[in-house]
Amino acid sequence: MTKQRKIILEESEMPRQWYNLAADIKCPPFMSPDGPVPPEAWAQVFPMNLVEQEYSTERWVDIPEEILSLLTRWRPAPMHRAYALEEALGTPARIYYKNESLSPAGSHKPNTAVAQAWYNKQFGTKKLTTETGAGQWGSALSFAGSLIGLEVKVFMVRISFDQKPFRKLMMQTWGGNCIASPSTETNAGRQILEQFPNTPGSLGIAISEALEAAVTDPTGETKYSLGSVLNHVMMHQTIIGLEAKKQLEKAGEKLPDVIIGCAGGGSNFAGLSFPFVYDKINGADIDIIPVEPTSCPTLTKAPYVYDHGDTAKMTPLLAMHSLGHAFVPPPIHAGGLRYHGMSPLVSRAAEDGLLAPRSVPQLECYKAGILFAKTEGIIPAPETTHAIATVIQEANKAKEEGKEKVILFNFSGHGLMDLVGYDKYLAGELSNHKFPEDQIAKNLEVLKGYPLP
Amino acid sequence: MTKQRKIILEESEMPRQWYNLAADIKCPPFMSPDGPVPPEAWAQVFPMNLVEQEYSTERWVDIPEEILSLLTRWRPAPMHRAYALEEALGTPARIYYKNESLSPAGSHKPNTAVAQAWYNKQFGTKKLTTETGAGQWGSALSFAGSLIGLEVKVFMVRISFDQKPFRKLMMQTWGGNCIASPSTETNAGRQILEQFPNTPGSLGIAISEALEAAVTDPTGETKYSLGSVLNHVMMHQTIIGLEAKKQLEKAGEKLPDVIIGCAGGGSNFAGLSFPFVYDKINGADIDIIPVEPTSCPTLTKAPYVYDHGDTAKMTPLLAMHSLGHAFVPPPIHAGGLRYHGMSPLVSRAAEDGLLAPRSVPQLECYKAGILFAKTEGIIPAPETTHAIATVIQEANKAKEEGKEKVILFNFSGHGLMDLVGYDKYLAGELSNHKFPEDQIAKNLEVLKGYPLP
Repeated sequence: MTKQRKIILEESEMPRQWYNLAADIKCPPFMSPDGPVPPEAWAQVFPMNLVEQEYSTERWVDIPEEILSLLTRWRPAPMHRAYALEEALGTPARIYYKNESLSPAGSHKPNTAVAQAWYNKQFGTKKLTTETGAGQWGSALSFAGSLIGLEVKVFMVRISFDQKPFRKLMMQTWGGNCIASPSTETNAGRQILEQFPNTPGSLGIAISEALEAAVTDPTGETKYSLGSVLNHVMMHQTIIGLEAKKQLEKAGEKLPDVIIGCAGGGSNFAGLSFPFVYDKINGADIDIIPVEPTSCPTLTKAPYVYDHGDTAKMTPLLAMHSLGHAFVPPPIHAGGLRYHGMSPLVSRAAEDGLLAPRSVPQLECYKAGILFAKTEGIIPAPETTHAIATVIQEANKAKEEGKEKVILFNFSGHGLMDLVGYDKYLAGELSNHKFPEDQIAKNLEVLKGYPLP
Repeated sequence: MTKQRKIILEESEMPRQWYNLAADIKCPPFMSPDGPVPPEAWAQVFPMNLVEQEYSTERWVDIPEEILSLLTRWRPAPMHRAYALEEALGTPARIYYKNESLSPAGSHKPNTAVAQAWYNKQFGTKKLTTETGAGQWGSALSFAGSLIGLEVKVFMVRISFDQKPFRKLMMQTWGGNCIASPSTETNAGRQILEQFPNTPGSLGIAISEALEAAVTDPTGETKYSLGSVLNHVMMHQTIIGLEAKKQLEKAGEKLPDVIIGCAGGGSNFAGLSFPFVYDKINGADIDIIPVEPTSCPTLTKAPYVYDHGDTAKMTPLLAMHSLGHAFVPPPIHAGGLRYHGMSPLVSRAAEDGLLAPRSVPQLECYKAGILFAKTEGIIPAPETTHAIATVIQEANKAKEEGKEKVILFNFSGHGLMDLVGYDKYLAGELSNHKFPEDQIAKNLEVLKGYPLP
């Protein structure tokens, strides 16, 4: 065959270190009313080995052999050349994607789930609590818990819990316990339900519940696990971009011209892009585009502020782009992109002009998802369609300009658990969900007493 | 890392020819009341290029470059060493599996779907009809049709249509049109519905409907496509076993001691095993085990007879193990294993003593599936759990005997679309479904007037 579609790596070629962007850009510290939050303040929430990673400014961090071995259940992930999509678009661009959909849970999330579960196990943790939006993260942590031997409890945003009933069954098959959030199991959940009995829920609320469930366990053997946002999570995901670098080289390419990933909390975007942000800091000319839904436009419309990571204000303040911790996004199907904030590292990189954020409305995303399914063959997760819609924009731009650009994007997950959204899209029942401008002014008002980053 | 979990191949290492077992064992011909059925009798049903393959006794058949290129969307498939399962079982056996679950449709079925769609396109076909049990095949053909540009209509066995609503949405996302069978769209369907309005349906009925829909299309541009049973389908699947041979060699293994695959119509089993059946014919000592449900025990309990492939008796007579064309299997969740007959090549190989068939009850299969999900990490399709249950039997046997056996099996598909079955199993709501002995005597009675193979 003249055309090689997949660029693969042997297990022996896997990266042996994660890249830590915190070594190269400076983020303001976590903040509390008493000033910057020291590492030991997290002791109830996270195991200290992960807290150390969270505060680390080492550029390269060794990946323990045991974690590498766990990752080989599905890694290295192939990089595909999207010949069929290129042909359908008639673009001179060469489009590549990392296929993170081949993990047993169907997305990039297990990259950090197995790492976090492993560090927790080392530390003596017996049980993990977490939240999940679309269910990708809850599935990934249930998967990791089952491999490593940890109990897992997942608070799933109600709108997704209802839209995606199979996600709960998936977690359950791996032994995870998944309940809808807000729930009556926590103070945070009960308070929200009293005020808004019909709330679709939000990641912010689910985080509050998972945090509360962890820190109130009297045995002290329960810790909390977060699937995105924090520095150590971004770092665990950089294996995606580090593999991609080797693969681009094998494909005979230099650095890409454009890098694209969808961004909710930021983890799949960071995973692919941060190793290339490093190149950009060192002079490379790359457009690096995080893509979010127009109905939850953290990077493109929200200010860079200090805000809580959760609705009940249990977390310290994080310096990040935020729509306000009380923001409840419209019920779009890309549940993983419905978060009021954005990873502090991604936010800071955007502030530093290293990123070129963009937002795309729901219908354009589904249209792109269908085109991808019918050309490349894989049905994308609704989150992933945001990246694909932007790839199509960039490929069309390359066509107009007549430029042979290299576009690399992260195919963060498959959509086999999200087919109800496709069904509704094909039946013409979906809309774009306007960005709720009225809500945001009110939500940001409460941040006025907070410090500025 | 000391342990390499996956043995991978480059696209350039893909097999360039399929293996055709019909060169090495002798099957009785298709039969009609007028005697053996000549190739041209199939002209209304299949394109002649596929009919030629069906009748071919060439040992090696070239795979067209265009089909190889289509297959590279997901092939070569990795072979995994099941270290975690071995450890959980404490077995001295070395267990390997081909991971066919990584195709966009989630199973081995696309291997023949893209081949059949391509040959049809070459021949001028515009539309394909087919049947599907669990939905794996209907999804695979919809996927192939979308890549190649053919309309696809799928008759899905009603019990699975109801149990697995997402399968329909999957086909629809790729542009396929899926309806429940028996339907009111065909004479065959209407007749069954009149007699048995509440029938769960069967593959035999769905085949009748799909055949009727193809041959009654007045334009002549509609052909029928079968996802299993026939010789050309088995041949297209041999790429699995041919890849596995290369991978075992890379892993430093000689021929395996035991080969295992689940068998409904026979295609994933044949795909993995036939290249090794060739070795066995030539003197190799290998136990080759097709595994079926105890509630639909074609190879283990049914006679080797001439019977129709479908309920409405539209197909010629095939020499095969059959429970009778009117047999309606109990509603087990492994919908792809609910077929009254068995591939003529698999049936003949069993008659020739080349295979050692076995059957496993539903509960043992789900138990094995859960163990696999919690150790190896991937949730298996209910069909695939039949192979896994048998792998566990063989691994335990190797432990008792203290033998370092090499066991190879086909991980034919993932269970992400089949989680309702796992949910019911975990809730204790599933039973083993006894084999309906009373039905079979009656069903075989009608075959008494048929010739003997």
